[in-house]
Amino acid sequence: MSLFEKHEATINDAIAALHARTFYAAFPENPSPAVYGESADSDGKEKFQALLGKRFDELNQAGAEHWIGREESPYTQDALGVSYPSLSAEILIARSGKAFHGWRKIGLKARAGILMESLERIKGRFFEIAYATMHTTGQGYMMAFQASGPHAADRALEAIAAGYEELQRFPAKAVWEKPMGKYTIKLGKQWLPVPKGISVVIGCSTFPTWNSTAAIYGSLITGNSVIVKPHPGAILPIAVYVSEIRKVLSENQLDPDACQLAADTAENMITKELAEHPVVKLIDFTGNAAFGNYLESIPGKTVFTEKTGVNSVILDSVEDADKVAANLAFSINLYSGQMCTAPQNFYIPEAGIKTPSGIITFDEFAQKLVDNINSLVDNPKAGPYVLGAIQNKKTCDRIVDVEKLQAKVWLKSRVFDNPMFKNARLATPVVLEIDASKEELFGAELFGPIALLIKTKNTAESLALAQALAISRGAISCGAYTTDHSVREQIADAMALACTPVSFNLTGSIYMNQNAAFSDFHVTGGNPAGNASFTNPEFVSRRFTWVGHREPLKEA
Amino acid sequence: MSLFEKHEATINDAIAALHARTFYAAFPENPSPAVYGESADSDGKEKFQALLGKRFDELNQAGAEHWIGREESPYTQDALGVSYPSLSAEILIARSGKAFHGWRKIGLKARAGILMESLERIKGRFFEIAYATMHTTGQGYMMAFQASGPHAADRALEAIAAGYEELQRFPAKAVWEKPMGKYTIKLGKQWLPVPKGISVVIGCSTFPTWNSTAAIYGSLITGNSVIVKPHPGAILPIAVYVSEIRKVLSENQLDPDACQLAADTAENMITKELAEHPVVKLIDFTGNAAFGNYLESIPGKTVFTEKTGVNSVILDSVEDADKVAANLAFSINLYSGQMCTAPQNFYIPEAGIKTPSGIITFDEFAQKLVDNINSLVDNPKAGPYVLGAIQNKKTCDRIVDVEKLQAKVWLKSRVFDNPMFKNARLATPVVLEIDASKEELFGAELFGPIALLIKTKNTAESLALAQALAISRGAISCGAYTTDHSVREQIADAMALACTPVSFNLTGSIYMNQNAAFSDFHVTGGNPAGNASFTNPEFVSRRFTWVGHREPLKEA
Repeated sequence: MSLFEKHEATINDAIAALHARTFYAAFPENPSPAVYGESADSDGKEKFQALLGKRFDELNQAGAEHWIGREESPYTQDALGVSYPSLSAEILIARSGKAFHGWRKIGLKARAGILMESLERIKGRFFEIAYATMHTTGQGYMMAFQASGPHAADRALEAIAAGYEELQRFPAKAVWEKPMGKYTIKLGKQWLPVPKGISVVIGCSTFPTWNSTAAIYGSLITGNSVIVKPHPGAILPIAVYVSEIRKVLSENQLDPDACQLAADTAENMITKELAEHPVVKLIDFTGNAAFGNYLESIPGKTVFTEKTGVNSVILDSVEDADKVAANLAFSINLYSGQMCTAPQNFYIPEAGIKTPSGIITFDEFAQKLVDNINSLVDNPKAGPYVLGAIQNKKTCDRIVDVEKLQAKVWLKSRVFDNPMFKNARLATPVVLEIDASKEELFGAELFGPIALLIKTKNTAESLALAQALAISRGAISCGAYTTDHSVREQIADAMALACTPVSFNLTGSIYMNQNAAFSDFHVTGGNPAGNASFTNPEFVSRRFTWVGHREPLKEA
Repeated sequence: MSLFEKHEATINDAIAALHARTFYAAFPENPSPAVYGESADSDGKEKFQALLGKRFDELNQAGAEHWIGREESPYTQDALGVSYPSLSAEILIARSGKAFHGWRKIGLKARAGILMESLERIKGRFFEIAYATMHTTGQGYMMAFQASGPHAADRALEAIAAGYEELQRFPAKAVWEKPMGKYTIKLGKQWLPVPKGISVVIGCSTFPTWNSTAAIYGSLITGNSVIVKPHPGAILPIAVYVSEIRKVLSENQLDPDACQLAADTAENMITKELAEHPVVKLIDFTGNAAFGNYLESIPGKTVFTEKTGVNSVILDSVEDADKVAANLAFSINLYSGQMCTAPQNFYIPEAGIKTPSGIITFDEFAQKLVDNINSLVDNPKAGPYVLGAIQNKKTCDRIVDVEKLQAKVWLKSRVFDNPMFKNARLATPVVLEIDASKEELFGAELFGPIALLIKTKNTAESLALAQALAISRGAISCGAYTTDHSVREQIADAMALACTPVSFNLTGSIYMNQNAAFSDFHVTGGNPAGNASFTNPEFVSRRFTWVGHREPLKEA
């Protein structure tokens, strides 16, 4: 049985799910022993610990000039001490170009089989990856497991499925017969989906696998060779992915350099050198707007970006203000606001929020939100796990700056007790009140646990501000609460025009921060928050080119 | 019966054809009385003549500041005297923005019905459009009829069909139920294909409708409003299209400004003002590389370009050298080399071309090509119709310059007798011999009737040069002649990597210049000749954005 045959049913299920967009997940998100086995967690933890302080040599990328790596755990503020082979951009690109032809020529099914097999191997390392993710990103355990393991693998599978479908969108061959009156012109035609070449995937520090797997697998399934350039602060989680892909390639007598890791350090980044190289045709990026805009401006490249945005919540009318405040407090606390989908601006009418039992005033709702944030933070069974730790010290600096703004501080950021990690870099959310007239204070992304309660004249102003900021600064998510059907339709239409998906009236244990593979397009690509979307058809179709050859057919 | 119902069967046929890629044409390319009616041609000619010297007022674009127009017939070198309303970029954009919302909100089927109906109306004006095309582009009658009429309408239909399919790629609604162990999260989700906004379609002087209809109809079917900015030298053919679209919009109580004509003159172009305007999100362009590259570099736009390229013919071995020379001579003569798909560089090994009856030397083949060019030019029943006239005087200047190059001139350009148009601007092909070492002479596009016979060491060098130029300068078409299967496969692979479609071994009445709707992707988008392709899925899918909203479902 070929690897393709082994995994064919899953690929077909995934393609069906892409179209149906109902719930589908190939990799269980529940880390319980009943699902992954009694010792899976402890084994993974041991394996992670065994990697610390050593060369990560399972990549088998020979010829390293140095071994480098400066990762540091946000939970211990200690260096991980893991080092990776340092190879120049020139060497990485030369190897990638060499591996490209073997990889493109083995054909779609062989590629699909190898990539699916790599995901199965990675599934066996989800717990190790979870600890690697915790100790590079600061995510809590559950998020680190789910986002870097099953959810990232589902996003990879989604890209494999989309690629598998797009590459077969048109027939490999057809006979074209044109009637010309007295005779017929008969051409044999063939259509080839030609990979673009070398793909560079640039990762981020907060979601080192989830934000990169769609691109890596999307480029690979379409026949490109890939250079994975992780953020210098979060290499280990994706290094495990890359090493498993390379092992499956080698086992199948293919050049493993079809997928390479390009580790670097903040002091000596090779990203620009890779991106600007003329033979690099595809670039994927998650990160800040300035660098994303620079990448988008390089001529002759196909560039997919996820940059920054200002995510809004519009509060008009609610069924149950307590449930809403609880839901939003969780969204704010989750991973200390370090998700690209986390809400930042909460628009509340000065006349308050309508409820079935009367108006909740601005101040009443602000207090409910603050209370809910505090009670989650101060719950020792939840707070440390939901908030995790702060990946980047600059985020802590930003919180300090925000508290100095000319605005009412409803809640100051503070540290709290994480019993497992006494040295963790922590920060609870800061909540400010800002008048809608002061757009200079709320009109840009303030990454981290920062919530701004913006007092507007009414919901129409709330919506106008949310829409305008999404159009001018980008937005990846939006929350809206209204019990009024016509207001709902206005919000749905206005935010759709700003290419921002809206989560309406979420309460309970589903949050606006979450985007599910096979159903939610992550980032729409239609506003400044990014020019691409996981995984719409063009996310894979732009990684190759249809080329049609033709030739007269000889009569049989 | 709605307009959609009236045209539904054709849309379905067109979608099926898009996938099958076998021969399909909805609009007959044969202008014979048997197909279009006894008086169709003479009626069309009269209607065209009636337009000359007058205001083209059927656009009904009110408020013109001036009436402008400087079109000139390459056949008479006289001004057409047709003038068009001149409106500022600001007014055009304001009107477009106003019309946008009505157009996007009527829904896909209503838009499809209106656009299909407009094509049916335009079909009734194919002959008038043919004469308008002759007397702006210099195309011969048959090409002017086919390219500007049925073939352009087929390209429009192709875009409607592709858009109709892509907009329904994902379900409008679905229920997403996530099992959470003890309970289930149940969300209602909806997906909206949101048009990008205002689309500017910039035309060219040689194919004023064929190169623009896919973009115009592609933007319209996906719900955008469109501003058509024709080349100042070829306005009338596309003005007829725009006026028919506007009439159908008005008849259906819609704002006709969903599709506007933005006529200008070479002295006062408004293209940059339109393209750079922040609310313009989509730009389509056919024309020179410098302007195309500038458009591609404007941040925040989705830009589709067809620019310039160097098209090659690789001659290795042939069944019948005379048939090959005849076919290539036609390709060179056709519309005096003013097609973006016309061959320019003919790579011939110094040892000659293999045939079943022995080697044809370089010189023998050069002479055969020259003889075939001459015999077609000098055939009064064919020459004037095949060559047409020269659209732009600069093309004549280029021919003069080329003849001064340090190269052997196999054939000088000359004028010939066009009995119908004594004042026509004419030029027959110039044929030069150039050594493969002199890439500075053949390494750029020389637009017009210019054929360069490049003497190479062997076919491997021929292929290497053709591939390298396609990668560095772009290519839209390639011809190749070989009877050797392994050489064929090498050419197919190398040119595919250069994203250039190859026509192998064409003889008889099918030419490498021709690209058929529903089967041949025109321009691949994968080399510098352009970043887009008629009509692959992303040609329409990038004109809108998928946005998904979601909300908890209440239990019934």
